[in-house]
Amino acid sequence: MTIIDLAKKNKPNSDMRQVAKTENVDIKTLSARIAAGAVSIPKNNLRKNNAKFKVTGIGKGLKTKVNANIGTSPDRISLQKELEKLDTAIKAGADTVMDLSTGGNLRKIRQAVISHSTIPVGTVPIYEAGCETKRKNKDITQMDPEQMFEAIERHAADKVDFITVHCGVTKKSAEIYQRQKRVCGVVSRGGAFLIKWIIANNRENPLYEQYDRLLDIAYKYDVTLSLGDGLRPGSIIDASDKLQLSELYTLAELVMRARKRNVQTIVEGPGHMPINQIVDHIKLQKRITKEAPYYLLGPLVTDVAPGYDHITSAIGAGIAASAGADFICYVTPAEHLRLPDNDDVRLGVIASRIAGHAGDIVKNVHNAADWDREFSIARKKLQWDKQQKLALDPIKFAHERKKYHSSTKNVCTMCGQFCSMRETNDI
Amino acid sequence: MTIIDLAKKNKPNSDMRQVAKTENVDIKTLSARIAAGAVSIPKNNLRKNNAKFKVTGIGKGLKTKVNANIGTSPDRISLQKELEKLDTAIKAGADTVMDLSTGGNLRKIRQAVISHSTIPVGTVPIYEAGCETKRKNKDITQMDPEQMFEAIERHAADKVDFITVHCGVTKKSAEIYQRQKRVCGVVSRGGAFLIKWIIANNRENPLYEQYDRLLDIAYKYDVTLSLGDGLRPGSIIDASDKLQLSELYTLAELVMRARKRNVQTIVEGPGHMPINQIVDHIKLQKRITKEAPYYLLGPLVTDVAPGYDHITSAIGAGIAASAGADFICYVTPAEHLRLPDNDDVRLGVIASRIAGHAGDIVKNVHNAADWDREFSIARKKLQWDKQQKLALDPIKFAHERKKYHSSTKNVCTMCGQFCSMRETNDI
Repeated sequence: MTIIDLAKKNKPNSDMRQVAKTENVDIKTLSARIAAGAVSIPKNNLRKNNAKFKVTGIGKGLKTKVNANIGTSPDRISLQKELEKLDTAIKAGADTVMDLSTGGNLRKIRQAVISHSTIPVGTVPIYEAGCETKRKNKDITQMDPEQMFEAIERHAADKVDFITVHCGVTKKSAEIYQRQKRVCGVVSRGGAFLIKWIIANNRENPLYEQYDRLLDIAYKYDVTLSLGDGLRPGSIIDASDKLQLSELYTLAELVMRARKRNVQTIVEGPGHMPINQIVDHIKLQKRITKEAPYYLLGPLVTDVAPGYDHITSAIGAGIAASAGADFICYVTPAEHLRLPDNDDVRLGVIASRIAGHAGDIVKNVHNAADWDREFSIARKKLQWDKQQKLALDPIKFAHERKKYHSSTKNVCTMCGQFCSMRETNDI
Repeated sequence: MTIIDLAKKNKPNSDMRQVAKTENVDIKTLSARIAAGAVSIPKNNLRKNNAKFKVTGIGKGLKTKVNANIGTSPDRISLQKELEKLDTAIKAGADTVMDLSTGGNLRKIRQAVISHSTIPVGTVPIYEAGCETKRKNKDITQMDPEQMFEAIERHAADKVDFITVHCGVTKKSAEIYQRQKRVCGVVSRGGAFLIKWIIANNRENPLYEQYDRLLDIAYKYDVTLSLGDGLRPGSIIDASDKLQLSELYTLAELVMRARKRNVQTIVEGPGHMPINQIVDHIKLQKRITKEAPYYLLGPLVTDVAPGYDHITSAIGAGIAASAGADFICYVTPAEHLRLPDNDDVRLGVIASRIAGHAGDIVKNVHNAADWDREFSIARKKLQWDKQQKLALDPIKFAHERKKYHSSTKNVCTMCGQFCSMRETNDI
């Protein structure tokens, strides 16, 4: 039985109760939303009950969640460093983590990440199939469809909680891609593997063609399918083009098929997108998927600022979250330049949390603005210890404040004795 | 003759021609917008023609501009450090700078900043009047109205290009303030000085009461009046309250009076504001001020993230700029915690430039997205030198990219040999 089975039978399990409690949502409401596919709780059913594991709900009416991508690349392989990044992400407040490793012993790294993680773990099994193909000195176009499914089952058996599957990259997409000129082509690794494979073999994407087989595996382990946006725009110029939107419509159909089979889904979206397209895009996704949880990379609202893409994506993510996006995949300052390190991971998580909370303030999330109210009351009262305790990043708060010392009691060095709070507190 | 005089007589001067050229706007259109008060070019008429000075237009149809606040506080006084911050701000791409000093020899610091700056300089003269009052061991409520006007004239004579004047803090505001409960009170220093003064003396704000006298000075030097938002919200909970909006309506009236006297104006706004109020707020300001340039602090879309307020404000500023805000006052990571240092200044300017450009992409600014297109074409072609040259911060781009080395030619260490660009460039 998957969690959707239970929800449809109105038999909430302990995970559902935990999410309802954490989010301050009525269990019946939550259960109905899970049954309808508007909320997912990514948790592999092989995971034993572990008090340290933080069960997380994603979707309608719940706090916007943040995912941190970690993982090796062929150029940077260190299990130790990946476990440090995992630890950094969790400490910074990530709700989930994805191991996107493509270098080293992928299974060993994955199993270590899963065993160390206290938050849900996602992966992209096709990376493993691609790496195996390359290691045999074959081109990615020679990837065996059986390998793809074996990788998926292996990840599920390793207790992965959610997997990205690029089922929406189809023969039709390949046709559009070849007809249409895109500024930045395909920027998803999985998307690139598959479109190349489809064109070279003139065959349909096995993950689309044998989608029912994928649903069987997902059902068996209650793995949540994160339906990948292999054709997301990599430039604002490419945003909302036919390639992106035809994939989204395909994903919406696949959401409906998964729901019928009681398999949990999440839909992946954006990439690079100008500010004025974001709200309408979120509304479209919500309408055509009948409120499937929406998992966004960024969106990055300009292409020109590598080194600061945690900021370009926080702008887009804030807008998206306020319009109904449920789940933000962080973008780090290292994006487009190199594999992220610990500092990048921390900054990426924090920037996404800011965006998510700014969204929660204006969408229907239980009393999100109470945090701001309480914080601002402490600010007005010049209660610095309380502000620090309440701050989104208390360590940073303390570190920056302590850098300079004010000779006036209880203010900061920005205004010193001219502090507006101090001036007006006696009115 | 002020620049509005010239524009009304359709006699464009070299500054107007320079702005028209830089912005790729027809000179007649620009001239009409200056005449109507929809564009301001802050430049004191005592400034000699200096080839190094970068004339800057702010307002309708022009690129969104970024201001960096520098200046001492009573606790941190160093002219050298302020000149370093000025230099950092200019190198990072600030369009204007404000010297907000409240510590040390204010006039000496101001004159040094003005003589070193290649970009327009703004100040807040009431700080000087307030500091003089405090130095005489008097309370801010004992500030002499004559001192306020003397400070304003002194700043103008020192060749300041634009001055913040909190004319919209009135007796009526004080009444509302005392009746209404605000979470965070008054967070503007000038606003705090004045509301306290008004309440203690039971007198009208001299800057409002003697507004014509202010216009005389502004006209004489062609100093642009930046009509200050002394009552901006300091918490998202206070946003769009009666106090904020009644001040905005007052400022709109003062804009009309300035236009009749051919004095250039800018209106200051926001502070802390939830995402879903920003667009409507900008539209309201544009409507009631008949398109006066709008100069925004942030808006910060949550209160809880000190240490990262360049990010919280970039989210708000991106939305605001896309909706028509013209001028962004940066917020640095040090905001709410201490006086900013050089690194904070750099990060503040960069974050605001990202937000401004993201706004320019979607509002009516000449070919803003061409930058993104060119950048993304270079990215697709794996032209790293060209990307670096085009990057919003080329130094950061190079620095981050060089940290790790890839064994695969011409890619980055994020994906290495699995680079999606490399994979698909041969399709």
